[in-house]
Amino acid sequence: MRMAVSSSEQQTAFSLLERQSLLQGTDDNIKALFANACQAQEYERDKILFLQDDPAEWFYIIASGWIKLFRETMDGHETVLDTLTTGQSFGEIAVLEDDTHTYGACIVEKAVLYRLPISLLKKTVEENHKVALSMLQTMAQHRKRQTHEIESLTLQNASQRIGCFLLRLCDPFTEGETTLQLPYDKSLIAARLGMKSETFSRALNKLKEHTDISVQGAKVIIPSLDAISGYTCSACSNEFPCEDLH
Amino acid sequence: MRMAVSSSEQQTAFSLLERQSLLQGTDDNIKALFANACQAQEYERDKILFLQDDPAEWFYIIASGWIKLFRETMDGHETVLDTLTTGQSFGEIAVLEDDTHTYGACIVEKAVLYRLPISLLKKTVEENHKVALSMLQTMAQHRKRQTHEIESLTLQNASQRIGCFLLRLCDPFTEGETTLQLPYDKSLIAARLGMKSETFSRALNKLKEHTDISVQGAKVIIPSLDAISGYTCSACSNEFPCEDLH
Repeated sequence: MRMAVSSSEQQTAFSLLERQSLLQGTDDNIKALFANACQAQEYERDKILFLQDDPAEWFYIIASGWIKLFRETMDGHETVLDTLTTGQSFGEIAVLEDDTHTYGACIVEKAVLYRLPISLLKKTVEENHKVALSMLQTMAQHRKRQTHEIESLTLQNASQRIGCFLLRLCDPFTEGETTLQLPYDKSLIAARLGMKSETFSRALNKLKEHTDISVQGAKVIIPSLDAISGYTCSACSNEFPCEDLH
Repeated sequence: MRMAVSSSEQQTAFSLLERQSLLQGTDDNIKALFANACQAQEYERDKILFLQDDPAEWFYIIASGWIKLFRETMDGHETVLDTLTTGQSFGEIAVLEDDTHTYGACIVEKAVLYRLPISLLKKTVEENHKVALSMLQTMAQHRKRQTHEIESLTLQNASQRIGCFLLRLCDPFTEGETTLQLPYDKSLIAARLGMKSETFSRALNKLKEHTDISVQGAKVIIPSLDAISGYTCSACSNEFPCEDLH
């Protein structure tokens, strides 16, 4: 469903845009160009935004909800490359891939997205040196994240991987309790972490034993980040909070 | 050991440099600037080039030999992020990381490297829009490689992962037999693929049963790429040859 963009939404879009590393340090007129081209959309669960190898018309910034990025293997299995939520963006990499999406994107929890034309981004990166440098920084950030991911898949056990996934959703500067709202479908998180659903359930129970977290449906309550980071981050070369998030 | 750079080595350095995606499409005077700043070095096995968090002075292009990139976890384990050989480069990402190396690099098989100043790369990326765009393409390539890696760790079994590692070292356009020279220390490849040494041995035997490859010490003989790609690539969303390699 396409929504009209009210001026207050335009404001929200602008403030989300400003926080994107892509536009950091760029002139206000470039930011305004992007804010004006920005369209708000609301989507229901299971809507496929695009598939791998689709021509890329838009890239997206998430205002609310959960999205999964995925690919399909030749023997028909799906890999969940990432699950994204509020404030994160996706699809922009297509400007470096002949305007083609290298993964599919699907709504997993009712979402409001801001979409922006790939053509505008491409033109701006090609013409504006500052934006090209910002895009480089954004890519470096993504790269760090992926390096982190490879390390996690190689070295952490299943419980630590769940702990890591949760920690990375927390504000590291919160004192006291943190409550996270996960997607209702836990098998999505299992797939995202490269686990079978049964492994995920067992590992989550183990994590609850080793730390002090509690889980109520899709809600996770973390009384203190110290207990969970102590358990999780020992098997990783990053200290908490992860450098690739900031 | 530092070697003097003869004019023929300068020529080799220049031709290796020209093939780097980083300098593709840039003017000849930029290429000459890099070729002139390039120094050849020869290193023995186990030499540490730099450690994680070291200030970055140089980035490197491999003329021959094997290098591993690694990180250490807080509980003292090592992750092998990558093993690299002839024609590949490393360390250049430091220009986007406050001139700091985000991983360590160590020689695992006697190597000749060409090293280039990070400061020159940084200055050129900042001043030259074309080089910034090339660097973006290089980063996109790395990103594809890492996405591929995450997928492989999530979906392929151990034998398929070894098959994938071998295939990615082959020239996909070769007809007939391919011979690969691996590092002598197989535990390095095991670590690179996130496996214990015992798992690696078992999985390699299984790969030999399922395909027609044979292994003699550090040498792997692959009679046809079809048999190995048929077995390996079915559990992956990339078709052979992998798009991120070309």
